[in-house]
Amino acid sequence: MLDFLSPHQLAKRETELGSRVVSLQTQGQQLNMNMARGRPSPEQLDLANPMLALPGSTNYQSAEGIDCRSYGGIDGLPEMKQLFGGILDCPAPNIVVGGNSSLAMMHDALVRAYVWGTSDGNTPWREQGTIRFLCPSPGYDRHFLITELFGFEMLPVEMMSTGPNMDQVESLALDPSVKGIWCVPRYSNPTGVTYSDTVVERLAQMQAAPDFRIFWDNAYAEHHLVDHPTSLGNILAACAAADHADRVLMFASTSKMSYAGGGVAAMGASAHNIADARTKISVQTIGPDKLNQLRQLHFFKDLNGLRIHMRAHASILKPKFDLVDDILQHELGDKQIAHWSKPAGGYFVNLDVPDGCARQVIALTAEAGVTLTPAGASFPHGLDPNDRNIRIAPTFPELKDIRQAMEILTLCVELVAIRERLRR
Amino acid sequence: MLDFLSPHQLAKRETELGSRVVSLQTQGQQLNMNMARGRPSPEQLDLANPMLALPGSTNYQSAEGIDCRSYGGIDGLPEMKQLFGGILDCPAPNIVVGGNSSLAMMHDALVRAYVWGTSDGNTPWREQGTIRFLCPSPGYDRHFLITELFGFEMLPVEMMSTGPNMDQVESLALDPSVKGIWCVPRYSNPTGVTYSDTVVERLAQMQAAPDFRIFWDNAYAEHHLVDHPTSLGNILAACAAADHADRVLMFASTSKMSYAGGGVAAMGASAHNIADARTKISVQTIGPDKLNQLRQLHFFKDLNGLRIHMRAHASILKPKFDLVDDILQHELGDKQIAHWSKPAGGYFVNLDVPDGCARQVIALTAEAGVTLTPAGASFPHGLDPNDRNIRIAPTFPELKDIRQAMEILTLCVELVAIRERLRR
Repeated sequence: MLDFLSPHQLAKRETELGSRVVSLQTQGQQLNMNMARGRPSPEQLDLANPMLALPGSTNYQSAEGIDCRSYGGIDGLPEMKQLFGGILDCPAPNIVVGGNSSLAMMHDALVRAYVWGTSDGNTPWREQGTIRFLCPSPGYDRHFLITELFGFEMLPVEMMSTGPNMDQVESLALDPSVKGIWCVPRYSNPTGVTYSDTVVERLAQMQAAPDFRIFWDNAYAEHHLVDHPTSLGNILAACAAADHADRVLMFASTSKMSYAGGGVAAMGASAHNIADARTKISVQTIGPDKLNQLRQLHFFKDLNGLRIHMRAHASILKPKFDLVDDILQHELGDKQIAHWSKPAGGYFVNLDVPDGCARQVIALTAEAGVTLTPAGASFPHGLDPNDRNIRIAPTFPELKDIRQAMEILTLCVELVAIRERLRR
Repeated sequence: MLDFLSPHQLAKRETELGSRVVSLQTQGQQLNMNMARGRPSPEQLDLANPMLALPGSTNYQSAEGIDCRSYGGIDGLPEMKQLFGGILDCPAPNIVVGGNSSLAMMHDALVRAYVWGTSDGNTPWREQGTIRFLCPSPGYDRHFLITELFGFEMLPVEMMSTGPNMDQVESLALDPSVKGIWCVPRYSNPTGVTYSDTVVERLAQMQAAPDFRIFWDNAYAEHHLVDHPTSLGNILAACAAADHADRVLMFASTSKMSYAGGGVAAMGASAHNIADARTKISVQTIGPDKLNQLRQLHFFKDLNGLRIHMRAHASILKPKFDLVDDILQHELGDKQIAHWSKPAGGYFVNLDVPDGCARQVIALTAEAGVTLTPAGASFPHGLDPNDRNIRIAPTFPELKDIRQAMEILTLCVELVAIRERLRR
């Protein structure tokens, strides 16, 4: 809409919005709203409160009679492997259950490839000079932080509505220094995209180094906002069919199902990869916390029970996501200055503002008391080349706070967009 | 005593013991006793059963009002740091609380030194060519396995009644390729030794590479069998006083206090080391499981409560250790063929048989249905140069089983010793 305004009209609107923002900034001293991280709300956490008294003082045996109070078992209870097998669409024997953090399992998988080489017996990455990782962007900042910690070069890849731009991925993966790609295949953080079957197939089939690994972080596998989610292709089967069985390492956790940081994480992969990981993990630790596995199992029962539980999460989250969309639509819908996602699941709404504006918008909302994810956080090294991407995390705040925060945000977006227009 | 027997008497005794062992081996098909690993008994685990219903469905807030069901906090609840500060004799701010496994924390500390270098900004160990570790032996097999996994050379150091032979340690540590030492300073696994103040001081003061690290695995810090345990010197303070503040990394866990594998682990070190570890850990994970910390805190209350709980453990364990000693004394006491420890705490009795006999003894007891820790397991690469060390783990079996197992073991010790004598 800005296109149709005269310079005079733009200036008038700028003055009007500017004074509203100034008055919000004064009020902003009191406000303290945080929409920066993908945290479950207390109401969501309450759903699992019965778990806090589980397994109960006499129920310490697993279904198979294992005393979960003692040592033993390096890769998890059989029932827990079964549950994660369902979540990850993977045979239960191909699962290793870990501790509370899937991120730590990804980090550790990377440590193993770096120090000892991948399961193929290839040279450890530490001895292969420059190592590069494909980073579909915007993506998950913590993936990029791990990559950075190891000193790997990050190659951004465009995120499209179907997943990463596979033309770019296929082209870059031809270089043998490219050893991995970070993927959040369902409800990508932050774009909300679910990878298409074609993307899954092309990832499985493409030419790449033998020790190239897809880090398939299926963090939102069961986190739908809709009743009939689109299916996600089976990357493990696709890799096996393409004779690249060892290419993918899949991860999930119950952190955003039960308790954030109090859940159980797991990895799924080829039998070969799992056997290799087990040899290292069995030196690293005596075994994971089986009592927390038992606790989760007693609460969820099985995959069906877990899915019923996740519907209760959805009924809390959907109104929040709807509200975000409503306000964006209402305030910015006809102004052609922003695009945003309407995700069918996950934890984020992705907002793209005019190029060069994201940093200013986020600074301005902060002054008005609304903390958003830092500008650029979803890009390698925290640098958004177009300075246009804003990640909105609407799960934690209450509806009334979301309303207020979104009104501030949309106001700031329009104001900054007009100022940019006037400046040019 | 064997020294006073004539060859004829020895042969007669050999025949007699041999036929008893043969008859035990026949019965051994039914027997299935395991004294191989340091596992708590079900009776010990029962002591913590109330914890299985904690923190309870409404008690998810920490003392400081932190919602333990959600993300946040990279290094543990303040109260948990306080508790571990007491266990490790270390200021609470110098504690990082981890997951369920102190072994995993040691492994990860080693990963950090290897990949990124120690906190001194020294060259990463991976870039320093051959890396060597001092391995007081007999010691803990899992320490040695980690060292082996990284390809470090292991230099055995003699274990004495006061701790490692410090003349050897000081001499070897002069070599800059020597980067660490594994220590179980209290009730050493398996010798039961508690390091003397002199050993602690000499470890702190000796000359060593700037990135030399003492891995101080205080696994049995609170695991006394006596009412008035000897004190253990404060290695962290001693290192600081010797101007080697960063030399020591201390570890402990509540695994053998609450549940084996279901406890909480922690690391204590200099502020500098902790700050450095935190920068890496905060990339590796979003944070540890605070609910399990809360669970342990609600159960133990504080250090005093934990110590009262450990006395209940001791009252279960002491009769077992006493029985082991009684039978060793009764069966072998006057025969001058074996020496053993009478530990004031910990999980093991250390038995030294005549040189060249341990492997045979362990094989023979196995045929009679008693599984002991594999011969040599307490030595680097699983190789006991004198083939004389046997680790007895009496915590798990019931008293009647311990009696039976020890009678078999002592019989086998005498038989093998006589056979060795006859063979020479």
